[in-house]
Amino acid sequence: MRIGLLGFGVVGRGVYDIVASKPDIEVVKVCCLEEVSLPDAVVTKDFNDILTDDTIDTVVEAMGGVHPAYEFVRAAMEAGKHIVTSNKALVASCYDELLPLAKEKGLKFRCTAAVGGGIGWLSEVERSRRVQTIYQVGGIMNGTCNYILDNMTRLGLDYNDVLKEAQALGYAEANPSTDVDGIDTWHKVILSSNIAFGVSLNRDQVPVAGISAISAADVENFKAHGYVCKLISTGKHLDGKYSVYVHPTLVKSNALEANVPMNYNLITLVGDTSGRMSFYGQGAGRYPTAYNVVQDLVDLLEGRGFYSTYGESVDVDNSEALTWYVRGSWPGAADETWGDAVIVKNVSVDEMHAWRKENPGVFIAAIAE
Amino acid sequence: MRIGLLGFGVVGRGVYDIVASKPDIEVVKVCCLEEVSLPDAVVTKDFNDILTDDTIDTVVEAMGGVHPAYEFVRAAMEAGKHIVTSNKALVASCYDELLPLAKEKGLKFRCTAAVGGGIGWLSEVERSRRVQTIYQVGGIMNGTCNYILDNMTRLGLDYNDVLKEAQALGYAEANPSTDVDGIDTWHKVILSSNIAFGVSLNRDQVPVAGISAISAADVENFKAHGYVCKLISTGKHLDGKYSVYVHPTLVKSNALEANVPMNYNLITLVGDTSGRMSFYGQGAGRYPTAYNVVQDLVDLLEGRGFYSTYGESVDVDNSEALTWYVRGSWPGAADETWGDAVIVKNVSVDEMHAWRKENPGVFIAAIAE
Repeated sequence: MRIGLLGFGVVGRGVYDIVASKPDIEVVKVCCLEEVSLPDAVVTKDFNDILTDDTIDTVVEAMGGVHPAYEFVRAAMEAGKHIVTSNKALVASCYDELLPLAKEKGLKFRCTAAVGGGIGWLSEVERSRRVQTIYQVGGIMNGTCNYILDNMTRLGLDYNDVLKEAQALGYAEANPSTDVDGIDTWHKVILSSNIAFGVSLNRDQVPVAGISAISAADVENFKAHGYVCKLISTGKHLDGKYSVYVHPTLVKSNALEANVPMNYNLITLVGDTSGRMSFYGQGAGRYPTAYNVVQDLVDLLEGRGFYSTYGESVDVDNSEALTWYVRGSWPGAADETWGDAVIVKNVSVDEMHAWRKENPGVFIAAIAE
Repeated sequence: MRIGLLGFGVVGRGVYDIVASKPDIEVVKVCCLEEVSLPDAVVTKDFNDILTDDTIDTVVEAMGGVHPAYEFVRAAMEAGKHIVTSNKALVASCYDELLPLAKEKGLKFRCTAAVGGGIGWLSEVERSRRVQTIYQVGGIMNGTCNYILDNMTRLGLDYNDVLKEAQALGYAEANPSTDVDGIDTWHKVILSSNIAFGVSLNRDQVPVAGISAISAADVENFKAHGYVCKLISTGKHLDGKYSVYVHPTLVKSNALEANVPMNYNLITLVGDTSGRMSFYGQGAGRYPTAYNVVQDLVDLLEGRGFYSTYGESVDVDNSEALTWYVRGSWPGAADETWGDAVIVKNVSVDEMHAWRKENPGVFIAAIAE
């Protein structure tokens, strides 16, 4: 297997390092903007050097972002190259463009590292579907949010102080919006649901609420009632309906999710024969993420791609009613008062997210049963 | 694929049910002592009806126990049939007989459901080894012990009361020794270590201490110091040494292990690139276990068997020093006193297990770092 590697940042360099010890996989060219020189690979700033190299059969995309990753991956596929990527934004956003193209061209397309980093989550979803029907996926999919919430909970700190510390330690970006506003988790639950249920979700119908409005007083409130707050994604396929959403969620302090520390992830699937299975590990980081990129390369060597799960476009139905913690001027009736906040029951996901959108300063969290 | 199924108890019937919906896998004969009649398979009490049937290419062993499972599986292999089994006692006890035979005969031999039931644990170990070196495996591998310890911890009940309840609910056998004395966990950590490290451990050197001597007062003691007791297995390959053991272990109350409820399992591997990964799910039960038996059958269809990880016989070195909770007449110096018990530091696994063996009434637990 001869590889053209796009991007030589955190993940790309990790892939290069791990592949160095695998005799049947060779990184022959690396396309990146950084000035690096590598003993065993040609480094180029020009993607065409990879595109036009007929000896390269597989492109590993580790650049991140939708553009120009999309254009590069698409061109590589048009040129008959298999694809492995760790880029959740790319795969979630361009699912309907890339997956059918892979099918049409008879190419392998794998993206295990795109969700859960070091956890072989999508690979296990793929394995699971061989034997059973999956009806729920989701969990803690973003290490930055978990790091912030975990530190706020353990140390009683303010959101902004923890965010600054996370930025200093490299756990959060200078512009943290993709993580703290839940966009990263949103990409991951859409991708996970698509693969688990064999569909292509209407993304515009999947709502997301992040954690940036949470306060130390909220966390105190949760603690006083035996809860811990986590950013949790949910994708369900029950009774013919697809319910998919991302929002802060209060879980009992002895729930497995409540005890996920630091920047770890915990992702769960529920299937009709296995019951609940959860997967815990490093959701990001150089070697954990690169580990699953290389696993995908080994799967390619063994002839496996999972584009075959690509399925029809489906609508999302978030009419499910939940119980919510709401801090802000909730206009409806309240069932309980917790400090500055209220608990409201039987409000649908659609209704609560719509209200939040109109009232940007509020903080909402669903309360897990 | 044409299957002869040995055993039609909890797991065997589950396999039969799941396979019914898979067109490429057919259970053609079932060997069991129960009186059952099945629409799509011949039922026989005579194993020879399966052994001599040349149309059967694969034997699924779901009888449990070492004998006559060993004789049946061995004979089936001599006759050129592939093997899938969920029987940890069989595989752990007869590793050196069965695995080399599979290799010699060019047969597939899989046993994913033998550890962790519904969790695809051994399958993930196999996958992991394709890319990285695993240096630690282990965790909560026995649902019965976890059920008992969890109920003692949550409800403050006595060991015997919880055991009786577990027996009434079917979570514990009438003779619970295999579970509560740690034998089941012992089989599972030996098998996991063998496959993860590619060796055959000297089983006689792997010590085991179970939970049957634990008291409600011990549990109170743990709680007062912020700990929860779990039966935890450990298999490590570090610095050329194999350290493998099973004993009750005190973990901090916010550790993931501490929050594993009921009869669930949580099994962990640590690898040189992925870091820590943990797997949570139903460690037993009809459909979860049968689910992974059928996963193995699908792997066989795809040409995968993992007998190739069979490796050389190695000694175990349990000279590792740990900190222990000891209730009983510990003869050495104590570092702390917790109620009736003492905390002793820097005592090796070998020494503590040897002392316990001489003093059967005592209760020991290692304290996790």
